[in-house]
Amino acid sequence: MKKLSVNKQRIEAKLFALGKIGRNENGGLDRTTFTPAEIEARNWLKKELNRLCLTVHVDQAANIWARREGTNPELPVLAFGSHIDSVPNGGMYDGALGVILALEVMHVLEEYGVKTKHPLELVSFSAEEPNPFGLSTFGSRAMTGKLTVESITGVTNSDGCLLTEALREAGGDPDNFARAVRSPHEFAAYLEVHIEQGKRLLQREIPIGLVTGITGIYREEVTVIGEASHAGTTLMKDRVDAFLATVSMALALEEVLLHDPDEEVVGTIGQVIVKPNATNIVPGEVTFSLEIRGQSKEKIQDVLSQWEDKVQIIHRHRKIKVIRTVKLNQAPVAMSEKIIACCEDQANKLGYPTYRLGSMAGHDAAHMASITTSGMLFVPSLAGKSHCPEEASRIVDIEKAGNVLLHSILALDNSL
Amino acid sequence: MKKLSVNKQRIEAKLFALGKIGRNENGGLDRTTFTPAEIEARNWLKKELNRLCLTVHVDQAANIWARREGTNPELPVLAFGSHIDSVPNGGMYDGALGVILALEVMHVLEEYGVKTKHPLELVSFSAEEPNPFGLSTFGSRAMTGKLTVESITGVTNSDGCLLTEALREAGGDPDNFARAVRSPHEFAAYLEVHIEQGKRLLQREIPIGLVTGITGIYREEVTVIGEASHAGTTLMKDRVDAFLATVSMALALEEVLLHDPDEEVVGTIGQVIVKPNATNIVPGEVTFSLEIRGQSKEKIQDVLSQWEDKVQIIHRHRKIKVIRTVKLNQAPVAMSEKIIACCEDQANKLGYPTYRLGSMAGHDAAHMASITTSGMLFVPSLAGKSHCPEEASRIVDIEKAGNVLLHSILALDNSL
Repeated sequence: MKKLSVNKQRIEAKLFALGKIGRNENGGLDRTTFTPAEIEARNWLKKELNRLCLTVHVDQAANIWARREGTNPELPVLAFGSHIDSVPNGGMYDGALGVILALEVMHVLEEYGVKTKHPLELVSFSAEEPNPFGLSTFGSRAMTGKLTVESITGVTNSDGCLLTEALREAGGDPDNFARAVRSPHEFAAYLEVHIEQGKRLLQREIPIGLVTGITGIYREEVTVIGEASHAGTTLMKDRVDAFLATVSMALALEEVLLHDPDEEVVGTIGQVIVKPNATNIVPGEVTFSLEIRGQSKEKIQDVLSQWEDKVQIIHRHRKIKVIRTVKLNQAPVAMSEKIIACCEDQANKLGYPTYRLGSMAGHDAAHMASITTSGMLFVPSLAGKSHCPEEASRIVDIEKAGNVLLHSILALDNSL
Repeated sequence: MKKLSVNKQRIEAKLFALGKIGRNENGGLDRTTFTPAEIEARNWLKKELNRLCLTVHVDQAANIWARREGTNPELPVLAFGSHIDSVPNGGMYDGALGVILALEVMHVLEEYGVKTKHPLELVSFSAEEPNPFGLSTFGSRAMTGKLTVESITGVTNSDGCLLTEALREAGGDPDNFARAVRSPHEFAAYLEVHIEQGKRLLQREIPIGLVTGITGIYREEVTVIGEASHAGTTLMKDRVDAFLATVSMALALEEVLLHDPDEEVVGTIGQVIVKPNATNIVPGEVTFSLEIRGQSKEKIQDVLSQWEDKVQIIHRHRKIKVIRTVKLNQAPVAMSEKIIACCEDQANKLGYPTYRLGSMAGHDAAHMASITTSGMLFVPSLAGKSHCPEEASRIVDIEKAGNVLLHSILALDNSL
């Protein structure tokens, strides 16, 4: 009997159809959480799911679930999927690829009338990316019980729009938010395909990445307070320039990281807001995001401590005040060896080389791992680029990942 | 006969009345050009001028002029004034003080029925401060023929509002913009009182500053182009971080200036816009303002050249691209010795100590100097602070400047 396989043309067509929604003039995706473009993408996905006669359900956190019943109603769910929101001016593969491959798996099973014992659920999680409401992996945190209604009440974006209202418009239900939580007993496993977003698979010419664990992410909001003053009449020696202090702090962070022999620890200042931000005023205040990622909590703490030592000296020298607020302190999460081994086995049977690697990006799978056996497959990213319009993966690699996903689901259905 | 003098209580009351318009929750002024608050301040001023039975005229550039006829209709105008717009979160003395003292001079002359030979004109110039339309000293440039209708057509602020429309709402007339230009023959002199915005008068305990010249101002918009990439998956060594490159360029500028023995040359990066400005994306592009001020063109050029040498090295090291656009290159301008001597003489007669100093800030007087004999008086700034909510001057010093202005106008009326 011929081995089941995913349909490359269909995958490509759907990737591009979804990738058109929210496309900006740079060719990038502006499909940030709960924006009109993201709502449009949700509607597109729901239509596709309905076509496959799946039972579509939008939960209180606006996660989209599509269920295909199994033959044994006693068994827990095999879930798989990803997310369809993007960063500002992002790419069309991050998240979307995992949802499209999950859709394709459902399509193939339907097409060939394959019955599974376990019920299957495709999931598209809400707000995986950092977003204007300041809450990333929103959907997976909500459904794994890590996000309470209190923590989302009163949260606004920079336009003053309430998260709860935006959530309602996307089909969520903030009034009954706790009902989004699902029990560990409901799930047998979770599997997510995602682009690597780095160069390791590409450089090794390997199509299938088996994710061993997901990086820890530490985030702070740092506010540097100096003194706003006239850019003409304030002598250089009299200035307390919040931007120049920020600049010194940014270079200190880079210095610590460049000197670290572990190249899988990285740090970024990605968001910088200068006040009052006028040509002829010495900046009085700067707020910036500090992010450190590493494969262990100890590594992140070590980088942070080294940076803090340097920052102490900058404080004294620059006479500034610094206010630091921890925004996220997500521990590294290991993926299930059972899932890794299953995917490895299926890839081998399909004749695809595999490589085990840590994920340097956070994913919904990190939260799913707290309630069920979880794993991830990585697809090589061209030039390692991601979160930008140039983000791309080859369809031949995507097809292979689709086939490993399909056969791993079937294998897990048998083994779990 | 008792010497005429300005009314301290009246000055203080009007300064505070005007200073309430546009006040924000920090106690600062948000009275940027052509905003509702600035329009309200214009209306307040026009009402005050009308009370004094002056002939009020708003020109095509929305400059407000208030004329008091002289006894000799053949003589040109003695003009004096300043501006009432502010920087974002600025103070209530910058500009406003000069307009309030001009108003007080008109009030005293009216009160005591003093006739002058020359016609007198109070002026409140439009948009002196850098503003969201990117055109500072807008009004004085327009009326001295340095701003054409072409250069203001199509100009927008960051919200996409047209400058021409905003100008129209403020009472200007972009369709007949060239008619704002006034001929050198129309003026006998221009005199402006302004806060020093530095610490030199305060440190010397001298109430009256006689401005010898106005600093040159050089401004660029610099865009640094790197590569936006994922903040987790892009290794430190693989990044082309536009923000870190900006950071190096900012430190290079500070280094050049701190090593310069001339403390009256200053440089500032006051405006910084990071793109895409997201927590988890390595910045792909940064646009920043570069400003250098100095008392000579050569000094400014020297600082710029030294900075460029350092920036060359940063370009190569960081692999970024840089686009530079000169936004302003205003030459230093000398004030009239005739006006300086006249003010000095009047201050001496009033028993006030004086000090000659260069202005490190740009002023409308720099443009007026291109069409008429011009001068400026400086009032000490407390703590040297300006362009911030804490900006202030003592009423005793303000009163002295008012008296010097009043008697200098009368002396110039006799001598010119």
